[in-house]
Amino acid sequence: MKRIATLLVAMATFAVLAFAPSASGRADEDTVPILENKLPAGYRDWKLISVAHEAGNLNDIRAILGNDVAIKAYRQQKLPFPDGTIIARLAWSYVPSDEDNKVFGRDQSFVAGTATNVQFTVKDSKKYAATGSWGFAQFTDGKPVNEAVSTACFSCHEPSKARDFVFTQYAPRCENRNPKT
Amino acid sequence: MKRIATLLVAMATFAVLAFAPSASGRADEDTVPILENKLPAGYRDWKLISVAHEAGNLNDIRAILGNDVAIKAYRQQKLPFPDGTIIARLAWSYVPSDEDNKVFGRDQSFVAGTATNVQFTVKDSKKYAATGSWGFAQFTDGKPVNEAVSTACFSCHEPSKARDFVFTQYAPRCENRNPKT
Repeated sequence: MKRIATLLVAMATFAVLAFAPSASGRADEDTVPILENKLPAGYRDWKLISVAHEAGNLNDIRAILGNDVAIKAYRQQKLPFPDGTIIARLAWSYVPSDEDNKVFGRDQSFVAGTATNVQFTVKDSKKYAATGSWGFAQFTDGKPVNEAVSTACFSCHEPSKARDFVFTQYAPRCENRNPKT
Repeated sequence: MKRIATLLVAMATFAVLAFAPSASGRADEDTVPILENKLPAGYRDWKLISVAHEAGNLNDIRAILGNDVAIKAYRQQKLPFPDGTIIARLAWSYVPSDEDNKVFGRDQSFVAGTATNVQFTVKDSKKYAATGSWGFAQFTDGKPVNEAVSTACFSCHEPSKARDFVFTQYAPRCENRNPKT
């Protein structure tokens, strides 16, 4: 029941953020949804923050990329993230690779299949003041969707308040294992 | 037995490529190991090709990045890859995320932990003529290693000859699922 309530809150939050007047109430932005309902230009070229796998119903493998503002903040280990930060979460179906398994001689390889969706978190302390300064958006097949998934919305990000509501941590370089640079 | 033989061949191949005179035999390159034993500058900033998970003994999660030459070739779906292509495979330990699992309400989240190593495949049709025009290198803790793992060497890449010995395929954009762009 708690999960359902959380999801409903998340869905409502997403709808408010993406398709309704912003929390700031500024007249010039009242009708401008997140990212203007468009995918940020060049997001597929952004730099890598980290990677992850979600099993269960999602069953995807994902890359988390950041625009230059995001990457700079991550590397400086500076919180909160500054306005202008955009973090992109790209996900693909999680599929076994028969080809790779043959090479390894055992079933152990999983790769990215078809794209599922892409989500963005956008930092704007005025526009999204009511939700920790973050706005959330999801695109499927290149189109914005007006329904939330649990990772897309502020209510689910609240447990990560100590890291400015961002779950993903920077994947370190192999030559510098501990520092997040 | 076949696996052991393959591994030995792979190790020998790696040693030849990384630390011995090149197959081309050009005097000026005879003593220059792959990438001059240095990590390519800025590789952590390269664009994303795809992501993967290797279970089993490796038990890692990985990102495959490409330099500009690699990305352009991938997007043009052009084979063989041109000289100058470098593909980087970054790997991290595959660790469950307690924090994420709490949000999802079940154990399903896996993220990147500490870095394990980074591998590079470098296209140079003259220097590496004997191995499909590809050279291979691995770095751990920022230092080149003189031992091979099965994914690092040409003999293991041979099954992917139809794709110019490259296993990783480009992870498509969500807004354009089928084309590899």
